[in-house]
Amino acid sequence: MKRFLVDMDGVLADVYERVIGMEEEALGKTIDRAKLIGRKELSVFPRSAHRLREVGFFRSLPVMEGSIEGLKYLNDRYEVFIVSAAMEFPNSLQDKYEWLEEYFPFITWKQIILCGDKTPVVGDVMIDDHLWNLNRFLGQKCLFTQPHNMLVQDPQYTRVNSWKEIMELF
Amino acid sequence: MKRFLVDMDGVLADVYERVIGMEEEALGKTIDRAKLIGRKELSVFPRSAHRLREVGFFRSLPVMEGSIEGLKYLNDRYEVFIVSAAMEFPNSLQDKYEWLEEYFPFITWKQIILCGDKTPVVGDVMIDDHLWNLNRFLGQKCLFTQPHNMLVQDPQYTRVNSWKEIMELF
Repeated sequence: MKRFLVDMDGVLADVYERVIGMEEEALGKTIDRAKLIGRKELSVFPRSAHRLREVGFFRSLPVMEGSIEGLKYLNDRYEVFIVSAAMEFPNSLQDKYEWLEEYFPFITWKQIILCGDKTPVVGDVMIDDHLWNLNRFLGQKCLFTQPHNMLVQDPQYTRVNSWKEIMELF
Repeated sequence: MKRFLVDMDGVLADVYERVIGMEEEALGKTIDRAKLIGRKELSVFPRSAHRLREVGFFRSLPVMEGSIEGLKYLNDRYEVFIVSAAMEFPNSLQDKYEWLEEYFPFITWKQIILCGDKTPVVGDVMIDDHLWNLNRFLGQKCLFTQPHNMLVQDPQYTRVNSWKEIMELF
């Protein structure tokens, strides 16, 4: 059975949505989404970068549109592991576990991998929004569209723009 | 470079030492270590099994004899990842991160993997005290001696009785 490695931030959890909300609240004005395209996440939100280190940040993230239905679809058909590079933010570990338990209760603790570097974790398909994770992966590389990767055009990646597209593809 | 996957509990962290101490304190008498040989960990300590779910339990574990020097030895020569099946005990996640940071500061966050099932994590050598982890691993299986596995005699496992032996072997 095909093994899928599914990323959390930017794939299951909508980090942009949360950070944009925080920035808009602090600035008192609307952020132009078009200006985020092709720019590194942390460079466009310098004010919020430190918030990622706070207890509760990852627990507060909204769920990516369509991800509950989409992940359930994959989980019913394939071997699924959630693989998140969480170790850079040690305060996120418990948050991420509890967040998954709340929104994706069909994912068991046996299917969760919190790591720093994803290189030693192998599978057939990786769904991730970051090239640095996909580039070290030997299976099919699915690039989940997020503003920072929108300008990437490279046939080595299977671009998926939504969870609906993932369900159509597999 | 050879990649080592090193387990935490029963390899870097001395779980028996801690649990025996707790049991002896509760019982008010000394536990005969010989009676632990070949028996499953939790079956011999029914009184303490629930303690593993408490915040702080894994943070309080003593370091396995010789493991600091031994892991440093491996880390200086090979690619090392700490792979711990921590997800069954979500309260252990932050504890384990902080414990590693305190006793093994030469291990970076990029080298830590906390998971439920170790199957998708690949490498050349696994050092573990549990057969269920070693059996799904495709590289060299090093069985680190602990009371529960002392009766295992099977040539598929490279038995290592101490960190000193690991340093002699690699």
